Amino acid sequence: MVPGRGGRRHGNPDTRTDVLVAARELFAANGFAAASVRAIAVAAGVDPAMVHHHFGTKHDLFLAAVQAPADPAKLLPRVLAGDPDRLGERIVSMLLHVWDPANGGGPLALLRTAVNEPGYAPLLREFLLTQVVGPLLDYVGVPVDEREVRGGLVTTQLVGVAVGRFVLGVPGVSAADTTTLVAATGATVQRYLAGPLPN
Amino acid sequence: MVPGRGGRRHGNPDTRTDVLVAARELFAANGFAAASVRAIAVAAGVDPAMVHHHFGTKHDLFLAAVQAPADPAKLLPRVLAGDPDRLGERIVSMLLHVWDPANGGGPLALLRTAVNEPGYAPLLREFLLTQVVGPLLDYVGVPVDEREVRGGLVTTQLVGVAVGRFVLGVPGVSAADTTTLVAATGATVQRYLAGPLPN
Repeated sequence: MVPGRGGRRHGNPDTRTDVLVAARELFAANGFAAASVRAIAVAAGVDPAMVHHHFGTKHDLFLAAVQAPADPAKLLPRVLAGDPDRLGERIVSMLLHVWDPANGGGPLALLRTAVNEPGYAPLLREFLLTQVVGPLLDYVGVPVDEREVRGGLVTTQLVGVAVGRFVLGVPGVSAADTTTLVAATGATVQRYLAGPLPN
Repeated sequence: MVPGRGGRRHGNPDTRTDVLVAARELFAANGFAAASVRAIAVAAGVDPAMVHHHFGTKHDLFLAAVQAPADPAKLLPRVLAGDPDRLGERIVSMLLHVWDPANGGGPLALLRTAVNEPGYAPLLREFLLTQVVGPLLDYVGVPVDEREVRGGLVTTQLVGVAVGRFVLGVPGVSAADTTTLVAATGATVQRYLAGPLPN
């Protein structure tokens, strides 16, 4: 592909690409928390200061590596505000908004990449768990030993709504009126976050 | 691709391909129920008798068109047998078994195709709705005016479990011990099938 000539350019395109490739590999292999900017810089053969200069914080670098269509940190405050018992409904509503192809189609592209290229699946997983589901678990105050199972359950319902509506076009999930969908799946997410667990 | 020389051959490979292409188009465009074997035969330029001869019933033709890895009609009796209140758990267990890459990997291939090729998404949707979820709705006796919404909700949870476990590898969903996963998401499926709907 020919690099675009419009827009701002940040540094040497090859260096940027090297950093993004290294970031994807290390975030996928080690997870968001364990992959350090220093290790990514070393893998890319550049100075850590250059990574910070071109990509900002580790959080920003991760969003760039994942090609995240939106920054959850900017959207989540609106989800967290309001009745704590309806957090599930608000996260499903936000999901429907962000994933709507009318709003850019970025998340669908991300899902396609994750399904097609095995190396990207861990990135999408890290993105969902650390940037979307993790803050919900924090907010609800889920005990450490229940984070993995509750986070996993929440993820199944969120991903299922997105795939059912935007990939498969299942009629009962794709209807213009999302009231029932949001209420029913929101209640499930709420239960997975804060309700009783089996056994 | 070079056609395999082993195994039984059914008719001219080109004719089979023509029938499968026409079947995919018509099943995707019109749905399983409305797409007739006659219309598929006409679209493929062959005699309907030839379609039946080579592919069997419309059900069999659909499974071939979808490249279904397993025939739900053969698996569902085991899911339907037993405590009706635990139907949700049994369908999730069956899903985990059939989708496990150790058992062939066919459903994952089907999902990849549906995500990549827009024409296939309606086929996977039809497959799930008419061959898997529909029989559950029938069994539970869901009223006609609730079939679409309940079927859609059930589909979101089933697809979410499959994608979370087998595509994304979410830790809380990928654990070897599936007891909690099956109990929690099975209870959700059960609620979507037979529990109260919001509003």
